[in-house]
Amino acid sequence: MLSKNQIKYINSLSIKKYRQQHKSFLVEGAKSVVELLDSDFTVELLIATAEFQQKYGSILSKYDVALESVTPDELSRLGSFQTNDSCLAIAKTKENQILHVTDGEYALVLDDVRDPGNLGTLLRIADWYGINKVICSENTTDLYNSKVIAASKGSFTRVKTYYTSLEDFFNGYTKPLNVLGTFLNGTSIYDVTFEKKGGYIILGNEANGISDKIGSYVTQRVTIPRFGGAESLNVGIAAAVLCDNMRRQLGA
Amino acid sequence: MLSKNQIKYINSLSIKKYRQQHKSFLVEGAKSVVELLDSDFTVELLIATAEFQQKYGSILSKYDVALESVTPDELSRLGSFQTNDSCLAIAKTKENQILHVTDGEYALVLDDVRDPGNLGTLLRIADWYGINKVICSENTTDLYNSKVIAASKGSFTRVKTYYTSLEDFFNGYTKPLNVLGTFLNGTSIYDVTFEKKGGYIILGNEANGISDKIGSYVTQRVTIPRFGGAESLNVGIAAAVLCDNMRRQLGA
Repeated sequence: MLSKNQIKYINSLSIKKYRQQHKSFLVEGAKSVVELLDSDFTVELLIATAEFQQKYGSILSKYDVALESVTPDELSRLGSFQTNDSCLAIAKTKENQILHVTDGEYALVLDDVRDPGNLGTLLRIADWYGINKVICSENTTDLYNSKVIAASKGSFTRVKTYYTSLEDFFNGYTKPLNVLGTFLNGTSIYDVTFEKKGGYIILGNEANGISDKIGSYVTQRVTIPRFGGAESLNVGIAAAVLCDNMRRQLGA
Repeated sequence: MLSKNQIKYINSLSIKKYRQQHKSFLVEGAKSVVELLDSDFTVELLIATAEFQQKYGSILSKYDVALESVTPDELSRLGSFQTNDSCLAIAKTKENQILHVTDGEYALVLDDVRDPGNLGTLLRIADWYGINKVICSENTTDLYNSKVIAASKGSFTRVKTYYTSLEDFFNGYTKPLNVLGTFLNGTSIYDVTFEKKGGYIILGNEANGISDKIGSYVTQRVTIPRFGGAESLNVGIAAAVLCDNMRRQLGA
């Protein structure tokens, strides 16, 4: 059984301040937890129902992880899910490690993406299209927010993130960079030549798009062609369409 | 001031049964309401704060619509938004009208899309890519759900929907149809030839994809190429990537 202090600790991890203080975060639900166990994240504690332990027994036996049994009722009182009849894991956050693209590689750059669902979706899309690095502005929503983890559907275990001042990041380069960004009056992505040397694809804030400050680093202004009446596309949709066009041209 | 009965009526419209009974639904927030006013939907009542009426005075003066003034506090107690300091409209639903593609036209077909946010996003994507018809299975979530309307960002005013048994719908055709559907082992959408004669693009349920029953009507099995580790894409993302590839080949 979980102690009162454990319950208090687990529920404190819904708040960024406590995640940073304890260097821990929550991963909820069977699919995400199974991907977590199979990743290079350190699992502090797995809290699971008897049903989950039975169903995933052969997987669990492969990992040496501290386990606490709970009823579905007890589990549902923990974490962010309305109901949870499977499991929840406490995992250790990773140090914020500097990331740069290597030759031929593309990375996403997020200029203040604020919605946790959007960040999770962006990680999932990056993962689908074989993009393993996401550079986040300091005001981009926290990776370890439960909604980000849930929306990423396990992709947070494969895609690396690096939070930094984007100005400092781009200013740190002395060689010319290849930086794509979407604007209203750019070149159609159907006509753009995605450079084989790789580079960065910037995605902007939900309300304001790419800021002027960060837009100044863009070397290739592109546009997703519009054929109807909608004013805009969601940032996740825009990212997917950009990545799809890039991969169609360049392959893996 | 709104009467108790009006408030009760408005809040009843959060439930499908009452929307159907009253043939009415809610549209919330400035952007969606402005698009509603400019559409062929009939507006029963506009409920707006003084601030909204001031800011949108010149637009409002163009329409002959019953108007009720409320404070932001009163407005926030109506409808589905947590807070609402602008407006809410009660509009009349439309009859469920039969839709078919005409020559050269593509339409989306939704096989039990259950999440309201996803349906709204799909309407927005269809709208962006100039697709004006969406055929929905009977178990697809209700168009007039507030979350669908909100997520569509006004696109519900431009994209027509038709709810029907998809089996009956496809069985009603005597000529051969062009029906695309995504499957794990289809032709890459980078290699598919989208037919100029138009047709249907089927999108499946969030958990189960396209059902076997409806899959049997698919004439072109396609796949969105994957380059990384994510297991799947969200239905909205898949729709956008399909539509983008279709438009890139065929144009408007």
